[in-house]
Amino acid sequence: MSLIVKKFGGSSVANAERLFNVANIIVDDYKNGNDVIVVVSAQGDTTDDLIAKAKEINPDNPSKREMDMLLTSGEQISISLLAMAIEKLGYPVISLLGWQAGFYTDSHHGVARIHKINTERMKAEIDKKKIIIVAGFQGINKYDDLTTLGRGGSDTSAVAIAAAMKADRCQIYTDVDGVYTTDPRKVKGARKLQEITYDEMLELATLGAQVLNNRSVELAKKHNVELEVLSSLERKPGTIVKEKVKMEKTLIRGVAKDTDVSVISVIGVQDNPGTAFKLFNSLAKKNIEVDMILQSVGRDGTKDISFSVKRSSSAEAIKSLEEIKDNFPFVDIKCANNVAKISTVGAGMESHPGVAAKMFEALYDSDINIQMISTSEIKISIIIEEKYADKALNVVHDAFFN
Amino acid sequence: MSLIVKKFGGSSVANAERLFNVANIIVDDYKNGNDVIVVVSAQGDTTDDLIAKAKEINPDNPSKREMDMLLTSGEQISISLLAMAIEKLGYPVISLLGWQAGFYTDSHHGVARIHKINTERMKAEIDKKKIIIVAGFQGINKYDDLTTLGRGGSDTSAVAIAAAMKADRCQIYTDVDGVYTTDPRKVKGARKLQEITYDEMLELATLGAQVLNNRSVELAKKHNVELEVLSSLERKPGTIVKEKVKMEKTLIRGVAKDTDVSVISVIGVQDNPGTAFKLFNSLAKKNIEVDMILQSVGRDGTKDISFSVKRSSSAEAIKSLEEIKDNFPFVDIKCANNVAKISTVGAGMESHPGVAAKMFEALYDSDINIQMISTSEIKISIIIEEKYADKALNVVHDAFFN
Repeated sequence: MSLIVKKFGGSSVANAERLFNVANIIVDDYKNGNDVIVVVSAQGDTTDDLIAKAKEINPDNPSKREMDMLLTSGEQISISLLAMAIEKLGYPVISLLGWQAGFYTDSHHGVARIHKINTERMKAEIDKKKIIIVAGFQGINKYDDLTTLGRGGSDTSAVAIAAAMKADRCQIYTDVDGVYTTDPRKVKGARKLQEITYDEMLELATLGAQVLNNRSVELAKKHNVELEVLSSLERKPGTIVKEKVKMEKTLIRGVAKDTDVSVISVIGVQDNPGTAFKLFNSLAKKNIEVDMILQSVGRDGTKDISFSVKRSSSAEAIKSLEEIKDNFPFVDIKCANNVAKISTVGAGMESHPGVAAKMFEALYDSDINIQMISTSEIKISIIIEEKYADKALNVVHDAFFN
Repeated sequence: MSLIVKKFGGSSVANAERLFNVANIIVDDYKNGNDVIVVVSAQGDTTDDLIAKAKEINPDNPSKREMDMLLTSGEQISISLLAMAIEKLGYPVISLLGWQAGFYTDSHHGVARIHKINTERMKAEIDKKKIIIVAGFQGINKYDDLTTLGRGGSDTSAVAIAAAMKADRCQIYTDVDGVYTTDPRKVKGARKLQEITYDEMLELATLGAQVLNNRSVELAKKHNVELEVLSSLERKPGTIVKEKVKMEKTLIRGVAKDTDVSVISVIGVQDNPGTAFKLFNSLAKKNIEVDMILQSVGRDGTKDISFSVKRSSSAEAIKSLEEIKDNFPFVDIKCANNVAKISTVGAGMESHPGVAAKMFEALYDSDINIQMISTSEIKISIIIEEKYADKALNVVHDAFFN
């Protein structure tokens, strides 16, 4: 007998038919003698509809406290309906709001962090042999006000429960059946992975393969919660995410593409201490996230610094640099929006120096020019022209997986 | 400076325009230096939509605990949106769910009774000079599960807050501008009452003039909370409901019509002790509410008993009597569905024996036959053929008010 935590997203519970599909998945595990705790998001477009209602009232800035009050009603609806579906199938069940399940958070409405989970109520309901349906994404602060955990909050709720209740497994149901070596819609030979490490998953998520929310993977890693990513529409094993996975014969775990990238080059900055600090501090103050950074070797007392940002941030980044020009002289700023980032990820590459060479060779064979290179212990990222992105994704993937 | 409790129903907050209308009413009282606590129902058809969702999942009997979990989300949406509207107008406001406002109830899901209101949070927010928006219709039981108060629950919530917070007045906003001497859609000469007693209001509500929920009037009477019934669409005084009102020159306060009536006559029952007990006990066991009762004088050892029930209960009432026929012999059962009840209500009639005569005279003048008569201290009800109901309403009203 195991304790299994399952999380279903909004599209999995969007209507009565899907609710019963999910209810049957849950009941099957329960019938096999397992204790089951389920985390659900708000149905389908509920959250977007609620946000639209709020924008109609106050288009500029409804208070975050009232937004949390509004949005948490979405999961309240989905948990009660799912509980009713399980009742209809004839199994004991109880729905719990975030606060009823013991989710205590800080007071950062909209992006609250979980402080602790008081598991008393959940344990009592498990002792009564009830299936528990918990509202994801939400908790309560010390003032008894409702809070939400922000984007991907339901994944985080599920992992947090699995950690607090010492669950045997935490299953995250999505509309894909697992984690792939690359985007299967773009690359024919994409393969589903049986297993992947937390770190690899984190890199892949950052790179745009957004199957799991990063915060939940970090939490799973911290508490060593074994995750499984699987489909709610097919009954087959998904991909397991855990600390150590058995070595597969391939060197890398996946190849990802990201086209939400711009490269900004600041030409002719002074080659002295503090230059990088001034530049990136001015961006950090405006909450602009910088990804890759490249600095040329200094020459004639000046150097060039290039960095990549999300494409939507490029205009603001340039504006920010223009503003500090008095204290931070440079000759010119160039911005390239027609670029893409291709990354290979794999814990195995640390001990295999040939990975980078193999990747660069594949691109060279296809006559694709590399504009920037950035490497970490388990990742190699390059910037290329955007028009070659899909081609690059295919040739790099083929180089490692065929 | 006063503390005012205001209650707005679902249609008053159905969309953004109406929410701002309500927000402006609230803010006007606040600007005049009053403390304001507002109770709102779920928007427009929200509750019906949620019930439909539940029926889709489990058409027979979704558990009441999960129904309460589902339905309480409706007020959660309306309180947060109303709070956002008030924020947009630039005034300090906070929304509170039933449990946050301290509503502790028993565990009868769907028809819970309020045990106590812990006013601590409300008092703290009033001290901070905040307008408080409370979710009506809902509370929490001792197991921390959400409960609902049943039909008209938001009125009850408002009166309960007014009592607990010792408010100076409790204003119930509706889509009519007060309590009328009779239905203004049916009778031209219908007049708005300035004042009415709790008891008169209770009788009128029972008689189908459903402006205020009876439970809330009873609660107001018990705690001597002064109520005002008024329109959210017009800014003018409504009708005050209180313990004693100044005598108006008319003898009665109102005339009401009820067509949801059937009269069942049990012919030829034995004229001995226990007959009435057996009959009405069998109905009570099935939760069939009996309104008027008429018993003929016994003759030849038998008598006839007639009683009125809601029309939807008549078939079940007859079935119930057929079932006990072995212990409760009778000759025949007759059921009249084509009947209506006309009632005059007024605390003044106690000391004015002429009221009944005046009512009967008006009906006689119009050639309307009276089938049953029932009187209480402040009410006279008669049963007539349904087709004369509107005519009877008019002539009786005219007799007293013209």
